[in-house]
Amino acid sequence: MGEGLGVRVLVLRSLSDLRQWRDAVPHGKSVGFVPTMGALHAGHMKLIEECGKDVDLTIVSIFVNPLQFGPNEDLARYPRPFEQDQKLCEQAGVDVIFAPESSGFYSVDHATYCDVEGLDRYLCGASRPGHFRGVCTVVLKLFNLVQPHRAYFGKKDIQQALILRKMVADLSLNLEMVLVDTVREPSGLALSSRNGYLSDEDKQRAASLYRGLSTARSAYQNGERNSEILKSIIRNEMDLGSVRADDSPNRIDYIEIVSQSKLEPIIIIDQPAVMALAVYYGKTRLIDNILIP
Amino acid sequence: MGEGLGVRVLVLRSLSDLRQWRDAVPHGKSVGFVPTMGALHAGHMKLIEECGKDVDLTIVSIFVNPLQFGPNEDLARYPRPFEQDQKLCEQAGVDVIFAPESSGFYSVDHATYCDVEGLDRYLCGASRPGHFRGVCTVVLKLFNLVQPHRAYFGKKDIQQALILRKMVADLSLNLEMVLVDTVREPSGLALSSRNGYLSDEDKQRAASLYRGLSTARSAYQNGERNSEILKSIIRNEMDLGSVRADDSPNRIDYIEIVSQSKLEPIIIIDQPAVMALAVYYGKTRLIDNILIP
Repeated sequence: MGEGLGVRVLVLRSLSDLRQWRDAVPHGKSVGFVPTMGALHAGHMKLIEECGKDVDLTIVSIFVNPLQFGPNEDLARYPRPFEQDQKLCEQAGVDVIFAPESSGFYSVDHATYCDVEGLDRYLCGASRPGHFRGVCTVVLKLFNLVQPHRAYFGKKDIQQALILRKMVADLSLNLEMVLVDTVREPSGLALSSRNGYLSDEDKQRAASLYRGLSTARSAYQNGERNSEILKSIIRNEMDLGSVRADDSPNRIDYIEIVSQSKLEPIIIIDQPAVMALAVYYGKTRLIDNILIP
Repeated sequence: MGEGLGVRVLVLRSLSDLRQWRDAVPHGKSVGFVPTMGALHAGHMKLIEECGKDVDLTIVSIFVNPLQFGPNEDLARYPRPFEQDQKLCEQAGVDVIFAPESSGFYSVDHATYCDVEGLDRYLCGASRPGHFRGVCTVVLKLFNLVQPHRAYFGKKDIQQALILRKMVADLSLNLEMVLVDTVREPSGLALSSRNGYLSDEDKQRAASLYRGLSTARSAYQNGERNSEILKSIIRNEMDLGSVRADDSPNRIDYIEIVSQSKLEPIIIIDQPAVMALAVYYGKTRLIDNILIP
């Protein structure tokens, strides 16, 4: 990587251009892949940075994947600041951006889907039916195109990361999955492309997500193993503000403690677990989690 | 390929041995793949022969995939004459046989599945729920392990071949699918590992499958475009013998005419189509088809 040099990044727009580029990568060069939906923030940049340390060539995909949005979700309003993303990639020494036209990525009669059964049953899988099918399908297709040696995913989307890691193992994909720690604002708020939707007030309130998780982790570290008690500690910390008169009140979607292996709720924490939550501030849904121990 | 030399074929039994072999294939060598469930016959041998003409290295997998068998199907009694298969592969100059232990191929908590929606709705997909999900999943995993440049499938299993070709396109897999013509006995009976289940009498009767398809093709070539009429021509040709007193009478499972693009029934043949059928002789289910035009 020409790190920090601001060398112009190669932008590929079509599947065939990507294939051609990949076929021309010399056999001995390692390829690292950071799939994104764009609207890059410091969380993405950390993935890119970790990737750049490990491999010869870093490729970032920017594609707002329609398959992973539900009918009432924010596909249309999802931010797409491509020029800014491109600049950030250039500054970070990314070698290639793959940014397919949204019309050209899936064929009009696309019919193939990939599911990781069971791991999508709770947490965001319960709130967003079809979401992880869309994620698995797009990432599998991207993997087949990019053929990376290593791929980088953030722990902020922990269910996504663990589902994709399972998919890679089950399907014997020849690549290494790297999970990277969540990047947070000084307030503790996990970085997300959706934070830009929040009012200043709600953004301040949303710091309570990580505060709740951290308080529960302290209780765990002090010996508390009962999920119900830990969840109530998180719930008590949530700052939703006063209930609004509109039809999108701030509200908790879920607070859950699940096993890391199966992502199923556990009552007593006797194995590696995830404390995870999703909260709506108005129409904006935020997620966060902490792995324990 | 050391064709006809009877050089000892390399037999790989584990996923890790296969990965190690694949990683050691020199970059410039082309790899051709013939996935099978073993019990090799002249139909498989034709796939292997075509493959050998095209590529530097031919790898045949032999794996009776439990995922593609229904609960009441013939998984347990499916023939597994491995030594004979190995000899045939050696004679044909196959370079590698991948024959995983049935216990080691999928992890005990395997959870990932691949579906090609719509194309599995009719024909064998209707009679064998979950079958093509099992086929797609095993072939996708095998493709990821073998990383072939070309893969060979018989047109006898036409729905399988067209579903897999769609999967390869939709998921942007970097390989070429080659579909090879059905090999038949002099009677016209399509070769199948399941033909060995048939009594001599039923085997003779089963020649009526291809006779029916051929007669309908002649009618098509003479201008007949009405699917109902063509299907009745096929049905009239079927020789099921006299109804038996046991609980597995000879019977037609389906006779269908579908489009090649979507595998959906068509009433008037105005596009490339498949005339396909499945017939039970006792517990043994035979399939056959003809592409038109």
